[in-house]
Amino acid sequence: MAEVETLDMDTKNQQFERDLGKIIAFLETSAYFKARDLLLEYNAVDIADMLEDILEDIGIEKVVIIFRMLPKDVSVDVFSYLPGDDQVNIVQAITDREISYIMKELDFDDKIDVLEELPANIVDKILEKTPREERKLINEFLNYPEDSAGSLMTPEYISLQDTMTVAEAMAYIKKEGMDSETVYTCYVKHGGRKLEGVVSLRALVIADDNTKISELMETDYVYLNVMDDQEEVAEVFKKYGFLAIPVVDNEHRLVGIITFDDIMEVIEEEITEDIERMGGVMGDDEHKEYLDMSVFRHAKNRLPWLLFMTVTLMITGTLINQFEAVLSQVIVLVGYLPLLMGTGGNTGTQAATLIIRGLSVDEVDLKDVLKVLWKELRVSILIGIVLSIFNFLKIVLVDQQSAAIGLTVAIAMIIVVMFAKLLGGMLPMAAKKIGVDPALMATPMISSITDMVSSVIFLFTASLVLGIAL
Amino acid sequence: MAEVETLDMDTKNQQFERDLGKIIAFLETSAYFKARDLLLEYNAVDIADMLEDILEDIGIEKVVIIFRMLPKDVSVDVFSYLPGDDQVNIVQAITDREISYIMKELDFDDKIDVLEELPANIVDKILEKTPREERKLINEFLNYPEDSAGSLMTPEYISLQDTMTVAEAMAYIKKEGMDSETVYTCYVKHGGRKLEGVVSLRALVIADDNTKISELMETDYVYLNVMDDQEEVAEVFKKYGFLAIPVVDNEHRLVGIITFDDIMEVIEEEITEDIERMGGVMGDDEHKEYLDMSVFRHAKNRLPWLLFMTVTLMITGTLINQFEAVLSQVIVLVGYLPLLMGTGGNTGTQAATLIIRGLSVDEVDLKDVLKVLWKELRVSILIGIVLSIFNFLKIVLVDQQSAAIGLTVAIAMIIVVMFAKLLGGMLPMAAKKIGVDPALMATPMISSITDMVSSVIFLFTASLVLGIAL
Repeated sequence: MAEVETLDMDTKNQQFERDLGKIIAFLETSAYFKARDLLLEYNAVDIADMLEDILEDIGIEKVVIIFRMLPKDVSVDVFSYLPGDDQVNIVQAITDREISYIMKELDFDDKIDVLEELPANIVDKILEKTPREERKLINEFLNYPEDSAGSLMTPEYISLQDTMTVAEAMAYIKKEGMDSETVYTCYVKHGGRKLEGVVSLRALVIADDNTKISELMETDYVYLNVMDDQEEVAEVFKKYGFLAIPVVDNEHRLVGIITFDDIMEVIEEEITEDIERMGGVMGDDEHKEYLDMSVFRHAKNRLPWLLFMTVTLMITGTLINQFEAVLSQVIVLVGYLPLLMGTGGNTGTQAATLIIRGLSVDEVDLKDVLKVLWKELRVSILIGIVLSIFNFLKIVLVDQQSAAIGLTVAIAMIIVVMFAKLLGGMLPMAAKKIGVDPALMATPMISSITDMVSSVIFLFTASLVLGIAL
Repeated sequence: MAEVETLDMDTKNQQFERDLGKIIAFLETSAYFKARDLLLEYNAVDIADMLEDILEDIGIEKVVIIFRMLPKDVSVDVFSYLPGDDQVNIVQAITDREISYIMKELDFDDKIDVLEELPANIVDKILEKTPREERKLINEFLNYPEDSAGSLMTPEYISLQDTMTVAEAMAYIKKEGMDSETVYTCYVKHGGRKLEGVVSLRALVIADDNTKISELMETDYVYLNVMDDQEEVAEVFKKYGFLAIPVVDNEHRLVGIITFDDIMEVIEEEITEDIERMGGVMGDDEHKEYLDMSVFRHAKNRLPWLLFMTVTLMITGTLINQFEAVLSQVIVLVGYLPLLMGTGGNTGTQAATLIIRGLSVDEVDLKDVLKVLWKELRVSILIGIVLSIFNFLKIVLVDQQSAAIGLTVAIAMIIVVMFAKLLGGMLPMAAKKIGVDPALMATPMISSITDMVSSVIFLFTASLVLGIAL
């Protein structure tokens, strides 16, 4: 990065974009060395970002050329930060020797990720050239179920014996540290493969040289099982804020560690899935970026809720038609129908959104169900009264309708808001209770139900207040 | 934690809940020592969790008693994991001497957080007893704008000179490491206060004792400015995945560091705010948990969008009433109105949700606007055709309505879906372009517009297809 001394974030982004533009211009005029030198002023994360943009703009060929011109150690780092698709594209375009180099240098867990993405024939070619011991380990790791702790972990950790002294441990770390995913937490065994404790590098650095590891190690460490689902893994990381967590098998033997950076992506994907479900989009098993997803798959993800809503909205329509007597006598009521239905949907969605998010960050617990309902009941009465008064005045004063029509809307409004808020508060909790994702209980589900109920409440209130026989 | 060898997450949670129940029972019978011993089998994060639950169940008094019975070093850690409200409650209930101890031992940034929450008179009392040098520093930190990098950082970092050897640096870290927030990244200066580079503990541990720091340090490090907003800080952490990032002032002098654990909360709050806004709830400046927020504040956060929707839904009603001629002649159309409006709202929200999330995780960029529109256009045609056919068949075959009415709904449906998807794709990008939070362009805004437009499209199509003069 250039040595600019007062650089706020915006300026940094602008400079990034400007340099990216220059690099693309260099590549287009085949000034590869200039492009490379400018690229190398950035760190590996930024370079990967730039290559992605370049690939989108002017295609894979130039990206492969510039990628091959990077110093080897840089190219491995950059490669590990590229998205899976781009990695596959690059692997297919470079020589076997270059692939071997990258594969040799990649961290073990990144290697597994790449191998999972690659076509089988290329995987075979790579495995052929891998030393037998590592090939065995790779095959073992490729066999853990997708989305399990086993599929996320790396076997590259520092393992100490509890009988070592601090000086011995530090010498060992100096020797092995280069190949380890993290050296900041070390894992302690006693002879066998069982995990006995963990010790932080910080504790080692601060302690006296002659202290025994057994005295320094912590034994109430947090750990995961290889078969734990990645959602549980993410929960544990979020809860404890650790940098790395050891993974053990059913015999409590240490088989790997998961580091924070590997779980960040999982956490982000979980949040994306939640948000999309709340917006009525069913996610895929495997996350794909918006622009990379095909039109058919987009349609496939969106149609389930739309068809469900079509059916419920048709039922709503049929229900409304039952009140033809009311509607044909007072056709102006049709104009207020969207108001009641829309308010029901929105106010219910608000409550559901708060509860779904509350459940997912553990601010709300299943045992709080009565507290939630009591809170929503009071909030809905307050909001219902405000909206009723507002609507009554508007209908009577602005629309110049009769007080009876104003009263119909006002009464129906309070009932609809109360119903919707209680439903929105309760449905996500009920879903969680029976093991369904609460995020599915947002807009589409809530508004399906409130649409039906709101229109019936409104037209039924109208028949009572206006004295029209059904 | 008990030594159970095959313990999956569910069993762990169950054990947690069971032990929590026992502890509460002990406290209720005043068996404090038994409660404490069981509590101490857990780590500080879990103990803080349990104290929160205990406080909710049986009140603050017993929590204060058990808190005071914890070993001092544990109590400081537990204190730092408690939510702000509980910290204030405990500080107000314990003695000055205990407060002094906790304040002395807390990490600097946690201390600042606690002081920001406490009432002014208690802050004054605490500052009185703080050494002058630290008091000066605290006052300085309390003065950074809320939500700035300055308010998140800590001055407790390891600072090395570039002329040191690795052996000298390690000796220095051994001496100072105890009081530093992290020792895993060290910050290198050259005489003055300016930041020259960073060096990881890993690099130090692996290097030879006589290597100079200037040879090991990286100079293309990422840094933040004290005045950067916490959203930008969160972006940088998410992008690079670093454990700690240095914060400099306008003269590029190192004033503090921000560590990953401190930004995690910020990231979570930003996501909560986004999700709530997408659900039509306006967040507060300061995040408060759902159950802790008063009924009035809940109502205040939800009313703005509801009132906005009320106004737009009334306009929709007025628009519908313009088509009285159509509606009174073919009253059955009223039953299909919710179908069109609902589908418009849902299908628009789906597109908006995907784009809002895509923008926030940088999968979609403002320059992609044409690609987004082209994608949504094709998706909407596909979905529109599926829904149209489905609806036409249902109307003609099941509802036994005329083909003309089926055709009206089918034609209007395709137009509505296309309009809603393009709107949903475009609005969040337009919002971002003009500096408005895209999350505000979800359900309430999209459905307000689509409600109006869908009903007009539907009734206008009806007048054309059915040949009814407006």
